[in-house]
Amino acid sequence: MTYGHNERMSTDAFVARTHFDAAGLVPVIAQQWDTHEVLMMAWMNADTLRETLETGRGVYFSRSRNARWQKGETSGNVQTVREARLDCDGDTILLMVDQTGAACHTGERTCFDVDVLAVREVSS
Amino acid sequence: MTYGHNERMSTDAFVARTHFDAAGLVPVIAQQWDTHEVLMMAWMNADTLRETLETGRGVYFSRSRNARWQKGETSGNVQTVREARLDCDGDTILLMVDQTGAACHTGERTCFDVDVLAVREVSS
Repeated sequence: MTYGHNERMSTDAFVARTHFDAAGLVPVIAQQWDTHEVLMMAWMNADTLRETLETGRGVYFSRSRNARWQKGETSGNVQTVREARLDCDGDTILLMVDQTGAACHTGERTCFDVDVLAVREVSS
Repeated sequence: MTYGHNERMSTDAFVARTHFDAAGLVPVIAQQWDTHEVLMMAWMNADTLRETLETGRGVYFSRSRNARWQKGETSGNVQTVREARLDCDGDTILLMVDQTGAACHTGERTCFDVDVLAVREVSS
């Protein structure tokens, strides 16, 4: 197993340490564990965070529909969660996942594949 | 140079396509361009987004201090921006950066290095 510094952290401790915003939500970054692609950013409330940690499947909360959604429940592109990391302020979560197929509802592998602006010349 | 699909995107087009929230902010994920570490997540308003794209230095907006801040202005750990990517909904930005030293104000390399919960057994 791979653990970070906080080896014995439990699901309860993780949820308790998370700072949810005024709407009860926390932003969650999903990153493919092996290629390290950033796949998407979405939101969770305390219930869907707990469900994610307990089931190992990415479950989010839609701000526009005001409802729970499980990644892949319509597309089949499920997200298996290997690790959850809370940031220094406890107000952002990084999930290391294994993403089946496209992570983006547009069919792209990631949600960041289309609108790219080169800010500095890149030599490699 | 490396460009995405949208080869001729300008700074103006990028800022115009960005959907800022009710507070005028957009979440920004900073990722180290070569190692692909997710370094931090912070917020920008339209002014600091434009400044970031025009200067190639990561400049953010502090929600707690209600003020502009430039990454590294006190620590010296500057963030050089190589690429900016807007997500499918236009409401999250992924910056590919070259981060000097620690990205986290705690002195850790990333803001996600401490509180780690293993959700699934990891064999590699």
